[in-house]
Amino acid sequence: MGCMDKPEETISSEVVFRGRVFSVVRDRVRHGSREYVREVVVHPGAVAIIAMTGAGELLLVRQFRYPAGRYLVEIPAGTLEEGESPENCAMRELEEETGYKAGKIEKITEFFLAPGYSTERIHLFIAYELERSTASPDVDEHITLLKARVEEALAMIEKGEIIDAKTIAALLYLKHKHREVFNV
Amino acid sequence: MGCMDKPEETISSEVVFRGRVFSVVRDRVRHGSREYVREVVVHPGAVAIIAMTGAGELLLVRQFRYPAGRYLVEIPAGTLEEGESPENCAMRELEEETGYKAGKIEKITEFFLAPGYSTERIHLFIAYELERSTASPDVDEHITLLKARVEEALAMIEKGEIIDAKTIAALLYLKHKHREVFNV
Repeated sequence: MGCMDKPEETISSEVVFRGRVFSVVRDRVRHGSREYVREVVVHPGAVAIIAMTGAGELLLVRQFRYPAGRYLVEIPAGTLEEGESPENCAMRELEEETGYKAGKIEKITEFFLAPGYSTERIHLFIAYELERSTASPDVDEHITLLKARVEEALAMIEKGEIIDAKTIAALLYLKHKHREVFNV
Repeated sequence: MGCMDKPEETISSEVVFRGRVFSVVRDRVRHGSREYVREVVVHPGAVAIIAMTGAGELLLVRQFRYPAGRYLVEIPAGTLEEGESPENCAMRELEEETGYKAGKIEKITEFFLAPGYSTERIHLFIAYELERSTASPDVDEHITLLKARVEEALAMIEKGEIIDAKTIAALLYLKHKHREVFNV
């Protein structure tokens, strides 16, 4: 181990963009005798939720994603607010996006989405014991709730109808590791 | 269909950061009578490669990811250069990162990594007929080549040793849809 545990030492860091959800920093880093520049999106982190109804259906959301220039079908997800725990964020986003409250929520895993340039780490949850609440999507989100059986969601991945990395990773991860949840 | 196909119309777009790999724009968009601001990372797109040796091993790379602040194990991947086709980029990145040239490469699918704020679209390839070449990693990449049997790579996902979304999505996608490739 030793110095190779973190080979790039930050020499200086400059905020070059301060946005509403993310910022961008330009860092000078040292590796041995060499120096580089690293431009990094600093993101507060996010959550995504696999929500299963008692009837064995998954809650999916279809929404327009401006950066993608199209509608995408995804599992419910959202960005951590300042000081918010991932668990609270997952409960809040699930309710806001789908109109369902979870009686029980469990963290499954976490992963990086774009570790080459973004600090974003996403916390993946599974939610059970869903009850209807009142959806209150953010005013600038255009969201439609879809319900799909697991086999249908997997077929949507195969057909290229689900093309969001976190959704693909989450559903296939759960199928791979927690088949009992899906009874498949 | 109709106007709901693309509900957010761009009114104005301002480049607020111009970086080496990505830029950031701040757009004003109109949805019906409402206007919002969208801050977007504009990324040229990327490729990722599932490379299988004749001996049935996957090529993985372990590298320090500055935004993540740690080493990550991933499938080989890289960013499209200007005017470069995804196929050429995949061939180039595979050779640069692993020291193997592919005799045959096939596109499997593509997906968005972080469609809430980034335009990045990743093209996923599978590479066969690998032959040793000479690795020439970029000077600011610190990359170690790992070889793993598919079952080992899947176990690394389960144990949280692989926590990169594109790698999880790619390997589980292939296992789910193309079991014949893995003989699993």
